[in-house]
Order: sequence, then structure tokens, then C-alpha cells
Amino acid sequence: MRIVFSIGDLHGIGPEIILKSFQKLRQTGHTFLVAGSYKAMEYYRKRLDLPVELELVNDVAALGVLCAPHCGVLSVLSVAEPETISPGTVSADAGRIAMLSLAAAAELCRSGSCDALVTAPIHKEAVALAGYRETGHTGFLGKIFGASSPTMMFFDPVTELRVALATIHVPLAEVPGLIREMDLAGFLVNLARFLKTDFAVERPRIAVLGLNPHASDGGIMGIDENAVIRPCIERLAGKMRVEGPFAADGFFGSERYRSYDIVVAMYHDQGLLPFKVLAFDTGVNVTLGLPIVRTSPDHGTSFDIAGTGKASERSCYEAALLAIRIVRNRKKTEHAS
Amino acid sequence: MRIVFSIGDLHGIGPEIILKSFQKLRQTGHTFLVAGSYKAMEYYRKRLDLPVELELVNDVAALGVLCAPHCGVLSVLSVAEPETISPGTVSADAGRIAMLSLAAAAELCRSGSCDALVTAPIHKEAVALAGYRETGHTGFLGKIFGASSPTMMFFDPVTELRVALATIHVPLAEVPGLIREMDLAGFLVNLARFLKTDFAVERPRIAVLGLNPHASDGGIMGIDENAVIRPCIERLAGKMRVEGPFAADGFFGSERYRSYDIVVAMYHDQGLLPFKVLAFDTGVNVTLGLPIVRTSPDHGTSFDIAGTGKASERSCYEAALLAIRIVRNRKKTEHAS
Repeated sequence: MRIVFSIGDLHGIGPEIILKSFQKLRQTGHTFLVAGSYKAMEYYRKRLDLPVELELVNDVAALGVLCAPHCGVLSVLSVAEPETISPGTVSADAGRIAMLSLAAAAELCRSGSCDALVTAPIHKEAVALAGYRETGHTGFLGKIFGASSPTMMFFDPVTELRVALATIHVPLAEVPGLIREMDLAGFLVNLARFLKTDFAVERPRIAVLGLNPHASDGGIMGIDENAVIRPCIERLAGKMRVEGPFAADGFFGSERYRSYDIVVAMYHDQGLLPFKVLAFDTGVNVTLGLPIVRTSPDHGTSFDIAGTGKASERSCYEAALLAIRIVRNRKKTEHAS
Repeated sequence: MRIVFSIGDLHGIGPEIILKSFQKLRQTGHTFLVAGSYKAMEYYRKRLDLPVELELVNDVAALGVLCAPHCGVLSVLSVAEPETISPGTVSADAGRIAMLSLAAAAELCRSGSCDALVTAPIHKEAVALAGYRETGHTGFLGKIFGASSPTMMFFDPVTELRVALATIHVPLAEVPGLIREMDLAGFLVNLARFLKTDFAVERPRIAVLGLNPHASDGGIMGIDENAVIRPCIERLAGKMRVEGPFAADGFFGSERYRSYDIVVAMYHDQGLLPFKVLAFDTGVNVTLGLPIVRTSPDHGTSFDIAGTGKASERSCYEAALLAIRIVRNRKKTEHAS
């Protein structure tokens, strides 16, 4: 199997966590490639004195010959090279290289040259400075692959906690309207399908959180549960295993999430606050609903510690392992069908 | 010191956690009283076979003679008695007795007969059935004492985590408008004052969370941080120690909260989701800004396990200990000033 990393913002911790992850990943027998800047990878390798052998690849065609013999070497496809490298700074050049690398890595997966994509973190401000309108991975990949609304999911391999978000990077004020307008039933049906193909969970048990405090306490604090969420769950209940809406505040603390294969949060912070407490170092972000396999660490560029060697590679390493697992699961599903 | 418990919904776990807490609290040397139903307390004492001696008090005047000699006995002031007791059921009668008990207990504190109030959980639906419009403790006590907007705070004695809520039990859709309209600066100034008088924190470090995902990433996802929250913090920064707005999702997972005396969440679930994960069994709810001291366990009536003996008294016990601590701190502050 061949896994490609997109380098992310080269002024952040992306190159460091890729190098550190590779030190452990090279023992898996799979091959790994970075789409991005050779100069940046070499810069951080030297600066942090990491014993990793890099190999420059200028041409995608050359990838064909890299395989088993190169397991101990991290190949770097030079997509674009920066003029200077200044860890911890916002720059349009780094933003541009991050997005070019992402596009190149996605294409390698689309064409079949690579089996899965692991994306290192990008910096939304740098990406915007580089002139991109779409500043998030999930939205950008959704556009490339014509997937109208890919699902953002988080997975912690330690607790096996899975959280999916019904709405993503939008102002909080827009959330109630989006929940009302979205096809929540379609979202839940697709989610069950993705859990089957990507995680080999045959009949997933899905828990849906309420939008309002205490899931509105029977309608006392908000109408959304009674008007939208509960009817949708009741409609689906005969066809699949879906329950809720649950009061969000006690759901995670009481470990009720352990009775379900996935928890659906209505908005970003409702899912990510508890997830990051329960799985800060090991959590992985997965995009469901794309033709390719894509995972990423669940943290940002951490400009404050970029270049210091302090970054933990744990989440990035787990993201690569999960990508491998999903590729295997998808192949099994294809065989079965 | 004399602490009064309001019995809460007598079909919930209130009587059980009071009895169990008292088994540990009687060693503190303070005296404890329950305002509620003697019949209900005796019912659960017998049903759960708890070795607690109860003493019926029919008249508040009789309280004067109860003191040190009665440390090992739990006094019960009969406020109202139910016709029947059915654990786990919603009933108007239980809702009515819960609110009468709360009012009686609050009056005992107002008049100086008791030093602090610990409230056992009530059931909003039962209270509404009994004809009350105000179905929450914080709002009800705020009205009794003419405190326009008491502050809801949560405290975990194990991690020392404190979380205050800028908005409470309202539909999520109303939150952005309420944040815009409220006197956030006054809220923060009062909070610092309460931390000084009630928790003996001299110059508290206050962290304020953003309203939107990633605290809007510089305005990309929402205007509230730049328009309201940040200007307010900047205005106060010279006078007190307040920082933010912080992206909420990583704030708790990264343990950044440990650098602050209190974290201000913009809405119910933003504060309570991480709080209940970090402090599920030991968390305590405190109402700041009342003339009396009031604490409570941070959980509900748990009708599903009422009468089974399975309820944990930990949060209720911690609530009583915190009430004692706050009474002491307030006395010290009064002496000093």
C-alpha cells in the first residue's frame, strides 16, 4: 500500500509530525510519500536532527519504480518550493504550497498512484492570503471530487469513540437554520453506509444529540428537537439503529457514548469539545463520502511550537494507521459485493 | 454551622443522595437539616436500609434548640407531605413539594436560621405540572431574592476547574442575540468579585471562550468575537486579569484551563460538555450573586434509578462541603472589609 502525506503549512508543525510519524510507520511495510516541498522536509529533518532518509522525486511517473525496496525511505514529491522558510509565520507562499500539495496528493489518490491521503494541517489565514476562497480541507476536497457535502468525522483509536458533525465551520448563529434545512435523514443513512464500508461496522448504532440545552427538555428550551430531529429519528428507526435526541451535556461524561458506534453532534463545538477532552493526543479526523480515503490529525498548525521539536506526532501517526485500515475495509466490502 | 438541604423531587434520587451524603457529613461537626417531607425521607431510609437517624421538626422555631447535641441526627422540617410515593414518576404533587421545600429552605437561609442551602435536583416537567412558570433553581432563587441575573457556575473540587455560563437555559438560536445584548463587561467584573468573596481568589485569572467555532478564526466564521467579545476583554484588560476569546474546542483537551481560575463559556453546552467529562462524579453547581450561599449537585433527578440505591452521593456531598467553604470565605471577607 502507498500512503501520501500532503505537507500542510510548511511554517507549521506539518513536516515535523510527518517525519516523526514515518520513523514508526516505516516498520509497517507500506510505502510513504510526501507531496510538497523537498527543501522544507530537508530543512526540518536537519534542524530537528531526525534520522530519516529522504528521497527527492520530481516526477510522478518515477513513482512507479518506488516500492518495496524503498520502504525505509521517505519519498518527497516536489510540488513547489518556497523561497524562504520561517517557522511560526503566516505567509501566502506557504499557504499556496499547502494547497498545491493538497491538490497534487489528492490527484495521486484519484489516479490510483497512491491508496490514501493523510493531510498535515493548513493555516486558514495563510490559505486565504494566497487567494483561495475555500480554506478548509473538507470543503476543498469536496469540490475537487464533486462531493456536495462530505461528512466530517472524528475517531479515537484508544476509546473507539466516533463523532460526526451535522454542520461544520459555520457561525453558531447559522446552525439552527442549517439543521432545519439539511437532509438530516439522508445524512444519517449515508453515515451508516460509510461506517459499513470504511469501518466494517455492519449495523451501526447511531446516537444523535439534541441541538438545545438538555435536548430542549421536551420543548421547554427550543423547538428543533420536536420539530426536526425527533421526527427524523422516528422515521428512520424501523430501517436502521438510530436513537436520540440525547441531552448533550451529560452524554459524554456518563460514558453513554460507549453504547453507540458513532455520536452525531449538531455543530462543531458540541462534537469537538468532548472529543478533544477524551482523545486529545490520539484523535483522528476522517472525511467520509469521498471517492478517496482521507484522514488527518485533529489539530492545527501550532505555529507557537513550529520548528522546536516539541510537536507530538501521535495524532498524525494514528491518522496514517487509520487510513491503512480504511483502505483494507473498503477492499473487503468491494470483494463482498 | 447549619446547612439545609431542599429535598428536590421526592420521586427522584434527592432523598437518597441526601441520606448517603449525611452519613459522611455528620463527621464534620456541623448540623444538617432537610426541608421537605419527613414521610419521603423515612421511606427511602427504610427502603434502602440506610443507618441514619432522622428527627421530625414541625416548626422552624424548634430549630433553635437543635444544635451540637444533634450532630449525629438528620433533622427533617416537614414542609409538605405527599399522599403517595412512587419513585421514578413525574407528578405534580412531587413538583409542588419540591418548590415549597425550596422556598422554605431559602427562607431559613435568608432569616439566618441556616448558613447555606444545598438543593437536591428537581424535575422541570413535574414543576411545570404543579403550575410553576419558573422551573429552574437559579431563576427561582433569583426572583425570591430580587437578583436580576444570578450567575451559574460549576466547580470541580478534584481538578479545581471552574466554569461560568454567560447564558443559561435558552434555545441555542437565542444565544448570539443574548451575548450581543447582555452586559458582558458587568458580568465579568461581578464574576471577579464573586471569586474573591466566595472562593478567596484575590485577583482571578479569567479565560473567555469564543462563541463560534475556532473563535471565528479572525472573523472568517462569525462576527461576534471581533464585534463584541474581544472589544469587551480589551476594555477590561487594564483593570482585571481577563483573556480571550479562545477557540473552545481545544481549550479543555489541551488543559489550557489549568492556567486560569475560571473559564467563561458563552452557552450551556459549551461549558457543560467539557465540564461533565472532566468532573462527572464530583462536579458541583453554585449560584453566584445571591445574598445566600447556594450549591447543588450537577446532575438531575435520575428517575431511571430512583429508589434502587444505585445513585452516587459524591456530587451532593461535595456540594455540601463547598457550601461550608463558601460560608467561611464570605465571613473572612466581611471581617477583612
